[in-house]
Amino acid sequence: MSTITLTTDFGTRDWFVGTMKGVVLAINPRASIVDIAHEIPQGDIRAGAFALMASCPHFPRGTVHVAVVDPGVGSQRRAIAVQTANGIFVGPDNGVLSWALARERIQLIRQLENARYFLKSVSRTFHGRDVFVPVAAHLSRGLPLSRLGRKLEDIVQLPWVGANRVKGNRDRKNTGGPFEVRGEVVYIDRFGNAITNIGPELSSPGKGATCEVLGTRRLRCPLADFYAAVAAGHPVAVIGSSELLEVAVNCGSAARKFGIRVGDTVVLRAKL
Amino acid sequence: MSTITLTTDFGTRDWFVGTMKGVVLAINPRASIVDIAHEIPQGDIRAGAFALMASCPHFPRGTVHVAVVDPGVGSQRRAIAVQTANGIFVGPDNGVLSWALARERIQLIRQLENARYFLKSVSRTFHGRDVFVPVAAHLSRGLPLSRLGRKLEDIVQLPWVGANRVKGNRDRKNTGGPFEVRGEVVYIDRFGNAITNIGPELSSPGKGATCEVLGTRRLRCPLADFYAAVAAGHPVAVIGSSELLEVAVNCGSAARKFGIRVGDTVVLRAKL
Amino acid sequence: MSTITLTTDFGTRDWFVGTMKGVVLAINPRASIVDIAHEIPQGDIRAGAFALMASCPHFPRGTVHVAVVDPGVGSQRRAIAVQTANGIFVGPDNGVLSWALARERIQLIRQLENARYFLKSVSRTFHGRDVFVPVAAHLSRGLPLSRLGRKLEDIVQLPWVGANRVKGNRDRKNTGGPFEVRGEVVYIDRFGNAITNIGPELSSPGKGATCEVLGTRRLRCPLADFYAAVAAGHPVAVIGSSELLEVAVNCGSAARKFGIRVGDTVVLRAKL
Repeated sequence: MSTITLTTDFGTRDWFVGTMKGVVLAINPRASIVDIAHEIPQGDIRAGAFALMASCPHFPRGTVHVAVVDPGVGSQRRAIAVQTANGIFVGPDNGVLSWALARERIQLIRQLENARYFLKSVSRTFHGRDVFVPVAAHLSRGLPLSRLGRKLEDIVQLPWVGANRVKGNRDRKNTGGPFEVRGEVVYIDRFGNAITNIGPELSSPGKGATCEVLGTRRLRCPLADFYAAVAAGHPVAVIGSSELLEVAVNCGSAARKFGIRVGDTVVLRAKL
Repeated sequence: MSTITLTTDFGTRDWFVGTMKGVVLAINPRASIVDIAHEIPQGDIRAGAFALMASCPHFPRGTVHVAVVDPGVGSQRRAIAVQTANGIFVGPDNGVLSWALARERIQLIRQLENARYFLKSVSRTFHGRDVFVPVAAHLSRGLPLSRLGRKLEDIVQLPWVGANRVKGNRDRKNTGGPFEVRGEVVYIDRFGNAITNIGPELSSPGKGATCEVLGTRRLRCPLADFYAAVAAGHPVAVIGSSELLEVAVNCGSAARKFGIRVGDTVVLRAKL
Repeated sequence: MSTITLTTDFGTRDWFVGTMKGVVLAINPRASIVDIAHEIPQGDIRAGAFALMASCPHFPRGTVHVAVVDPGVGSQRRAIAVQTANGIFVGPDNGVLSWALARERIQLIRQLENARYFLKSVSRTFHGRDVFVPVAAHLSRGLPLSRLGRKLEDIVQLPWVGANRVKGNRDRKNTGGPFEVRGEVVYIDRFGNAITNIGPELSSPGKGATCEVLGTRRLRCPLADFYAAVAAGHPVAVIGSSELLEVAVNCGSAARKFGIRVGDTVVLRAKL
């Protein structure tokens, strides 16, 4: 059983995703198909890249990941397949694969050119069904990437804004002294948790650390181990399940309560 | 591995669809179950018929398609299974299967009467779980349709309003001279694209064709090859992935921006 | 093929559920994973318990059911696995499993303590991915429950408010004489049907029975066999697919039309 994952902005209201699965099964009846997310906001490449990055490390080795957030479908953007030590990534070369691939050891990049592995008739508007998924289904059956098209040396990178330690010792990890880290909100999940770009190397100060979001409304809250460390309705910062600092409201929505949006500045301070 | 597809108006908020899958797996543990769509508007037989028609050609031969948009559940409407050259279609005989079947070569129609292939206790309100899905699961294991019930000669047809070439040469395909095609909007997808009943035989004029929608607000736009052929926010008509003319707004919603609704008249004009 | 079901309040907008499936497949590539419901309102243990109770009887023997509605994640609540005659139930010990288990013959209850069967790194906020699903995947491969942790004698019970026959013969079933049953609304489904706690033993009176909901607006309607027994837009009470009395509006939403909410009193009267 080979696994194929799907990450798209097609939604599940219509028949688009189901049709893609039909195409997979017509080529590889033994494929196990997993939906990662289909409600990525339309054309939001960053959100698609984040969802894929956050989920792909948990899949079995050899999984084929298909990500189709593709506002340029039908135009000149390239289509690619990327072999890594852990699996294969297929999608448009617009950055949607790049955050997941930044954590992988890339072995081979190929452009999708060989129409033999596409559907016979390729529409101009639905390459998810006609190009990406048939290629993924063939790859899941063992087709070598080299058959797909020319070798590429690099892919389009989506910029990842890094967080910075702006005060205190930047080299050592939590060895004392007050410090301050500045980052920003990169994703807001359906619970209204604001996930930031502040990773564990910057965010594990001792007791007494505070987190501040400089959004529509100013929010200041403690850093704790889990949501329920504060009373219901109160804000709290935790290291979330993606190992990034996130700002939440226990039993509520931080995004709605405080008007937080992607791009808002987040400041983490520790006195120690 | 046999494939069973599900198209319903049950939504995915509650446990209805999951329960249907449990029933399938209790009868055929090796079935591969694919959701086509579950957010069909409640009781909207046309939308269900369109989703099934648009997706079923892409599934493997032998797939069993179950469509349950069934406002008459518990009343006198018949339940049917239809064998075609490509697969089997199961659902209420209210037209929901008819658009998909219009493109298929029908081999046998049977009424679902033999309670041996239903759940032991059949509710009056959930034939998806109690009748259609158990029958489909048995069929996916090779049960002959002849065991299900009496032979039928025809099924309820949902009318398909055809588009018409109202000016110009109606017999030849794009061989010159101005022409005009009138059709209507038949489905609005989650992106707000307005899919029409104008097929490729009518809609492939040369350069300079324009499309007009006579809805709440009048919209006139060019016919192009793909969405991104116009600037973001602008309307465009393309041959969509279902091979039907559709009216879209690049990076936006045509339905919302121009108040388009199912049934609105669409006019395609070519000067040539 | 072993079946694993998932019932959560994680939604399907983000990558949470997809990631859980990746974790399952990395441990048991042959698992067949079925979504029961993921749009349980956040932290609503009663709604999760109801969905699991309503659907689990329809799954194959041996199914592993995972339910994660877990507002106390990261705090002191226990995590459990429960073996019954029909399958295995895995989740937090907060009552979310208790309604389904009330109908099962319990054979063994174990606390989830043995970190060998968790993900290597357990976050404080996503035990669905890190604890419950890896345990379920191991169980689906045949791991004995006894390896998971200490034996428990009981689990947290969610109270089930029973309906009562308040007038008439309480002992015998519909043997004559007028009677009155009082219950309450326990779940409102996506169609706006108000499902009550009045089971078939109380609700199968003869002709002429009426049902009343004492909610925001008073509603009185007949008891019938199916929704379409009344004209479109009219209210009707039926024994629903979960074998509980439910109040519906044919082709409409009873909850929206009459402002019905969970907890509203429902009275069923029969004159006979």
